[in-house]
Amino acid sequence: MKKETVKATAILKEGTIVEATSGGFKMNFDEPLKSGGTDTAMNPVQGLLCALGSCQALSAYYGAKMYGIELKGFSIDVEGDFDEEGQHGENGVNSGFTDVRITYNFDASNSEEDLKKFVKFIEATCPVGDTIANKVNIGMKAIVRK
Amino acid sequence: MKKETVKATAILKEGTIVEATSGGFKMNFDEPLKSGGTDTAMNPVQGLLCALGSCQALSAYYGAKMYGIELKGFSIDVEGDFDEEGQHGENGVNSGFTDVRITYNFDASNSEEDLKKFVKFIEATCPVGDTIANKVNIGMKAIVRK
Repeated sequence: MKKETVKATAILKEGTIVEATSGGFKMNFDEPLKSGGTDTAMNPVQGLLCALGSCQALSAYYGAKMYGIELKGFSIDVEGDFDEEGQHGENGVNSGFTDVRITYNFDASNSEEDLKKFVKFIEATCPVGDTIANKVNIGMKAIVRK
Repeated sequence: MKKETVKATAILKEGTIVEATSGGFKMNFDEPLKSGGTDTAMNPVQGLLCALGSCQALSAYYGAKMYGIELKGFSIDVEGDFDEEGQHGENGVNSGFTDVRITYNFDASNSEEDLKKFVKFIEATCPVGDTIANKVNIGMKAIVRK
């Protein structure tokens, strides 16, 4: 295994505003008014789906030449379902997404068969999708007092 | 099950720049120069970790009162490992994160025991962490020509 490690930091700011940074770039998150937030940015589950769609769009960008796909225009619609009853982490109901569905919008003259093969390539090479699809070892490293 | 569905769209723009939108908010992604990108924004795996850290920070915000935790200051460091050999989706090596470790930084006078209990609450209620930890049904809904 040739391990590579990616890092990010999230700082809880005023109220529900969170400032996240990774690789020198910044990304803010917030919660909607109905959840007691201040609605200044998307929330983290929306951010997760944006990262997923963008990751697949980039896999498409990188693979298009090899697969002979035009990509005159390309976009991805992502939808994720979760069970609201899981939001308090109780009753054995998962708090996260149970199902994620992806629609691929092509402006390309390739055949249906070619597009289907290309989608399989996208699915296999997108690391965000793979992380969501499979079990990942996730847990606490440390509690630090600052 | 009381199903709720969240949606997002990612549009491949010029080169490696992707514009993602959800709930009226926008978020750009790009790739670093070493990957042939233009380095104008973080990449999607960095975005995934930002969404994770921010989600856990918000779980902390919502639970702090109930757990009697001060949160004078609170931040989260996330690190995720993946195997570079999986980036082409070959050889049975997963392209996504295998391990994700989280460090919780508190400015709070609570006991170690209280902070540990609180971290367990955060882990149980953060939907992004739950989505990453567990298997999710993810797949193609449709191929659309536009």
